[in-house]
Amino acid sequence: MSEILDIAAALSRLLKAENVLLICHKNPDGDTIGSAAALYWALKGLGKTVAVLCADPIPSRYDYMDIGLYTGQFTPGYTVAVDVAGIQLFGDSIAEYTRRIDMCIDHHPSNSGYADCMLLDGDAAATAEIIYELLTAIGTEITPTIADCLYTGLSTDTGCFKFANTTARTHEIAAKLITAGASLVKLNNILFESKSRSRLAIERLALESLEYSFGGRCATVYLTKEQIAETGADGTDLEGITSLPRMIEGVEVGITIRQQPTGSYKVSVRTVTGVDASAICAHLGGGGHKQAAGCELLGSLDNAKAALLTEVEKALCKES
Amino acid sequence: MSEILDIAAALSRLLKAENVLLICHKNPDGDTIGSAAALYWALKGLGKTVAVLCADPIPSRYDYMDIGLYTGQFTPGYTVAVDVAGIQLFGDSIAEYTRRIDMCIDHHPSNSGYADCMLLDGDAAATAEIIYELLTAIGTEITPTIADCLYTGLSTDTGCFKFANTTARTHEIAAKLITAGASLVKLNNILFESKSRSRLAIERLALESLEYSFGGRCATVYLTKEQIAETGADGTDLEGITSLPRMIEGVEVGITIRQQPTGSYKVSVRTVTGVDASAICAHLGGGGHKQAAGCELLGSLDNAKAALLTEVEKALCKES
Repeated sequence: MSEILDIAAALSRLLKAENVLLICHKNPDGDTIGSAAALYWALKGLGKTVAVLCADPIPSRYDYMDIGLYTGQFTPGYTVAVDVAGIQLFGDSIAEYTRRIDMCIDHHPSNSGYADCMLLDGDAAATAEIIYELLTAIGTEITPTIADCLYTGLSTDTGCFKFANTTARTHEIAAKLITAGASLVKLNNILFESKSRSRLAIERLALESLEYSFGGRCATVYLTKEQIAETGADGTDLEGITSLPRMIEGVEVGITIRQQPTGSYKVSVRTVTGVDASAICAHLGGGGHKQAAGCELLGSLDNAKAALLTEVEKALCKES
Repeated sequence: MSEILDIAAALSRLLKAENVLLICHKNPDGDTIGSAAALYWALKGLGKTVAVLCADPIPSRYDYMDIGLYTGQFTPGYTVAVDVAGIQLFGDSIAEYTRRIDMCIDHHPSNSGYADCMLLDGDAAATAEIIYELLTAIGTEITPTIADCLYTGLSTDTGCFKFANTTARTHEIAAKLITAGASLVKLNNILFESKSRSRLAIERLALESLEYSFGGRCATVYLTKEQIAETGADGTDLEGITSLPRMIEGVEVGITIRQQPTGSYKVSVRTVTGVDASAICAHLGGGGHKQAAGCELLGSLDNAKAALLTEVEKALCKES
């Protein structure tokens, strides 16, 4: 297991580190990218050689962070995984860099402890909250760019301050980031107030496929690989759909099943308080948070659905 | 015009007031109700006789505020309009109480100054921000119920901290309200994370009626009174639709036209920064904020659309 660090200990190791490689999780979201980018700019500001590595491309909507990506320009001397709960989330294409991770900074209570040392705060709404405290401890100036990066992590992981993980601290940090110059209007428009035409198209198809189970307590949405290809929906469009079924009045478990190009099913489970999404997914080889988890299933769609609904039923019974 | 008050002056008048009638605007939203409710509980806590009046019913989703409504139980000695920008927003059915308004507390810069005196802060994201400062000045304990009321105003008027009116102060107050016991998870679920089946139905119809103008810079959605009746969509469902067309990638002006039971058209205009929604509506007898405004049009649908698009074109030209 990892050695557990506090902010001061993590700080002291980072200050000693040279040629730092910051590593995001695959299918990168706003928190892993925003947190890595903020740390990137802070370490760069301290004169360090640093770069960010991710198995998948950084979506273009995050271009404003202006991250320096790792392209082999130095031999990594210290590797820091940011917002990565387990080694399976790195992605195979960067395996040569993830065999040994020096430090992990994360807010997932389920973190497997794969890194040599770890700064973990399971109460933080986002890894960006931890990075904010780290940068404050360093005494780094929170530049407008760093504020943009951290605001991105904070706001995307909380669904713009809507999800159950949001705390007073989340809002306090948001206030400080706005004061530091975060481009609130621009970022909120990019992150939350804009839907591509492909997103609208896939949303309509999702609504058409909607099925209820357990007397309306569970809603399932299913998208074929052909539908995904036809609409041109990208990862962000599809990610957005996952919150849809759970939103429906009376629904306690919302499931989104997306057929992957390889034929396997990527499953996203979203639940209301009291129903444990991570338990549903853990039994199927996946994991995540209490209200948002996921897994990947193989075989026929009917079998996948049946397996899922069996776990959903158990979780709903446990609740009542 | 109204005498302009600061917090201290408003406070001193409120402390002297007896038999206070707090008045919301018609078609009440989270801010007018939440602000009035918070003030109601604070004045009640000071031992005053107080009640809340609104021309329209308070939607049941706000039941948790447990507001004491005015039913003629006392003769009003002091009337306070909360979040009401002009007298036309009171509603005719309560005209006997709105002929003279002693005080108005509001955050709309467009407030017409109809009240004897006014506590106006056009920089506040919501009237709830002003009420929070007022209650802090009184030294009222922010009980969990008051925190719920103010959080409702703050979060609904900012689209859960997404809209351009959100500031560092908004987040700071949100943090304080959470610390004071606002039921964040419950409220966010009620206010933002739940869609009725009728809302989903009306959303699908709205998407089907979508029309683009000016090369995709304007998107218009149209709902007939029959569609509204068939889906059973209520005011909240319909209100939610108004943000939809503006959200589409590339759209600068999003218009929602809802046919009213009387046949007139209720128009909601939402714009991106740089395009003035209130200017578009002001020319058509309406008004509102820079990014969110509205008006009501009579006559044929084609004429209504033509009049709207003429104003939209002017606003888009002004921008570029």
